[in-house]
Amino acid sequence: MEKPAETQFPIHDLLRRRWSPLAFADRLVEPEKLRSILEAARWAASSFNEQPWGFIVATKQDEPEWSRLLSCLVEGNQVWAKQAPVLMVSVVKLTFGRNGESNRHAWHDVGLAVGNLVVQATSLGLSVHQMAGILPDKVRELYGLPHGFDPVAGLALGYVGDPDSLPEPLHQREQANRMRKPLTEFIFSTRWGQVSPLVT
Amino acid sequence: MEKPAETQFPIHDLLRRRWSPLAFADRLVEPEKLRSILEAARWAASSFNEQPWGFIVATKQDEPEWSRLLSCLVEGNQVWAKQAPVLMVSVVKLTFGRNGESNRHAWHDVGLAVGNLVVQATSLGLSVHQMAGILPDKVRELYGLPHGFDPVAGLALGYVGDPDSLPEPLHQREQANRMRKPLTEFIFSTRWGQVSPLVT
Repeated sequence: MEKPAETQFPIHDLLRRRWSPLAFADRLVEPEKLRSILEAARWAASSFNEQPWGFIVATKQDEPEWSRLLSCLVEGNQVWAKQAPVLMVSVVKLTFGRNGESNRHAWHDVGLAVGNLVVQATSLGLSVHQMAGILPDKVRELYGLPHGFDPVAGLALGYVGDPDSLPEPLHQREQANRMRKPLTEFIFSTRWGQVSPLVT
Repeated sequence: MEKPAETQFPIHDLLRRRWSPLAFADRLVEPEKLRSILEAARWAASSFNEQPWGFIVATKQDEPEWSRLLSCLVEGNQVWAKQAPVLMVSVVKLTFGRNGESNRHAWHDVGLAVGNLVVQATSLGLSVHQMAGILPDKVRELYGLPHGFDPVAGLALGYVGDPDSLPEPLHQREQANRMRKPLTEFIFSTRWGQVSPLVT
């Protein structure tokens, strides 16, 4: 199954084909692919090159660890994410290593790293479904996150599966159209809310 | 000039070649390329598909607007960003449109959108230099940002230029090696700080 974005202007195939599946195939992810996916995250840009990201990773090759990470997702996500052979939780370091001050861009920069990770996964034929729905306190406790670090999001990663393997209403959700706001709602110039002539 | 990442594991060429130049060529960016770059941001994933990102955009084709955006950067960035034909400031919407509640992932999701934008720019032969160093209060005032929105970061975009066009110490900085923490410092399993066997 593919769900390419219906774009208004052309974009690169790796971005057009990226989407967040609910159905994952019963197929393990090759460790060398996973290494490239993590390496891609490593090379993102960040404020003062702080690289404020970290990842807790578990694969179905190590079932107890994988189950432990699954238990850190909200129930609504466990229902489908239990099909995914790789689970991760991203973690943010909230202060700068060089001076201990608050890093205003820490969460943003974790997003940049994950963006890289997702592009790399897509280029290797894999799909990523990111989840806001995790249990941050459980992550913090189970994995012993130190003070100054916050769990950010969950990631389910694997080869895309058959949508018919999903129960309703997930099956229907998997087939729904992909929607985005038009560019005219968020590309501005001169004043916030004034649409840039570039996109009209 | 190119500065490909010296990776430990192979990554896609679009990620390997991405870097943040200080020198931009004296060449305008084609509006159709800019539209594709903004469209790429549009298709990022986000928590509850909120799409909490916005961009203020100015090009040298409209000099007064471009200068106004340049004035929102800290002086240290203006020194080199004044070469860039396109300037942007990303903006985050801090609450969910559907219920007005705080969006924990808003900053993170702006990072995802910018990640897409940068990949698209790279695929079109363009470079992006992101800047934490902006003047948020000035952006807020000049562009009339409503309550509940925050300026995030600046982006300088254009074709890469000749490093010899840069004064010291920028010239030296442009030629410095690209450094990242090893994967063993941020890819963990079982417990925070315990290196995942995947990357050892």
